[in-house]
Amino acid sequence: MSTQNIKVYQDLMGENEKWAAATRSLLKEKNIAMINIIGSPGCGKTTLIENMVTRLHGKTKFAVLEGDVETTRDAERLDVLGIQVSQLLTKGACHLEAKLVNHALCDLDLDNLDLVIVENVGNMVCPAEFDVGEHAKVAVLSVTEGEDKPLKYPLLFRLAGAILLTKIDLLPHLTFDIDACVDFVKQVNAVPPLFKLSSVNGTGMDDWVEWAISVR
Amino acid sequence: MSTQNIKVYQDLMGENEKWAAATRSLLKEKNIAMINIIGSPGCGKTTLIENMVTRLHGKTKFAVLEGDVETTRDAERLDVLGIQVSQLLTKGACHLEAKLVNHALCDLDLDNLDLVIVENVGNMVCPAEFDVGEHAKVAVLSVTEGEDKPLKYPLLFRLAGAILLTKIDLLPHLTFDIDACVDFVKQVNAVPPLFKLSSVNGTGMDDWVEWAISVR
Repeated sequence: MSTQNIKVYQDLMGENEKWAAATRSLLKEKNIAMINIIGSPGCGKTTLIENMVTRLHGKTKFAVLEGDVETTRDAERLDVLGIQVSQLLTKGACHLEAKLVNHALCDLDLDNLDLVIVENVGNMVCPAEFDVGEHAKVAVLSVTEGEDKPLKYPLLFRLAGAILLTKIDLLPHLTFDIDACVDFVKQVNAVPPLFKLSSVNGTGMDDWVEWAISVR
Repeated sequence: MSTQNIKVYQDLMGENEKWAAATRSLLKEKNIAMINIIGSPGCGKTTLIENMVTRLHGKTKFAVLEGDVETTRDAERLDVLGIQVSQLLTKGACHLEAKLVNHALCDLDLDNLDLVIVENVGNMVCPAEFDVGEHAKVAVLSVTEGEDKPLKYPLLFRLAGAILLTKIDLLPHLTFDIDACVDFVKQVNAVPPLFKLSSVNGTGMDDWVEWAISVR
């Protein structure tokens, strides 16, 4: 039998890397930055992006790709703010893959963009395993979740280019030990900047947004 | 070629169902109940179980199977309370599967048990897809996560035999709309009881523990 008759199936992760590389190449050609925001359901990802919208509006041309298992609720929250936003529905899958992100990216007005913000599916485990072509993964941990999560879910924190501790306005009502948390983060990844944020009172937001727009 | 030479590979979910059935059969034989607690990282699963330990100690003979991606931190928290506890490490996987649970179960002193509490990996998506032989899945949502999660992660809430709203002591500091959340839960699953709990001040714990020990 000739090898021409043999069907070759690439493994799925290899296929993912191919699409991630295509995205990275397109971003470079168009001089666009892309961040991939990952954290648990309810850690404050969408609220964070709402805050970024108000700070970046009129200064930075950007779009949001909203990953969700089901519903278009998060995209609707951002759409009313008058920015380019697309909803990426995984229909049950627990993470975004590079192919879907690439397809959504190609449909944006790329000649009119500086930054693409990808909000991944709410999940601290699986999304970390998938490169979607971003310049940086951003790990989000709300202080209501407890300080030990960097040790318990180390892959995300190990791969992150920046780490955000959100909801710090709630610290007075919690037993969360912020110094211990920072120490746990450093045990798995000493390099990335760590921003302590509150979407309620704006703490830390200026520094974080400055980092986000200069990523590349 | 004879069919005897053809290797048959069952799909992974079929394999999972086989182990779940074996667990269910063993639990029935030994007259043991089992619940499978599922929710995001930091939603308060381990703290909830710590509270159950103090309430059930000396009344109900029970064991905890602690699912985690990495570390034995949660099992250590429970071990000091003097109960049967085993750590189930998934080594990167985002959920528990029935085979691992069955193996851990078989190593327990089954003739001396009324209830097995499985704490799944912190993740609102994938663990819901895997039957581990439990009598009921229990969905945990902390009020810091936002009221729309039952719509955004419907599979877990649809399959749950009970739904726990945790950290309700923090409600005065949040914009969480508890009536809207209950309504969203009912949109995906009107049947199960819903318990509003605080591990800090004990609210709702008696009713929840009573439900848990009578599940079957």
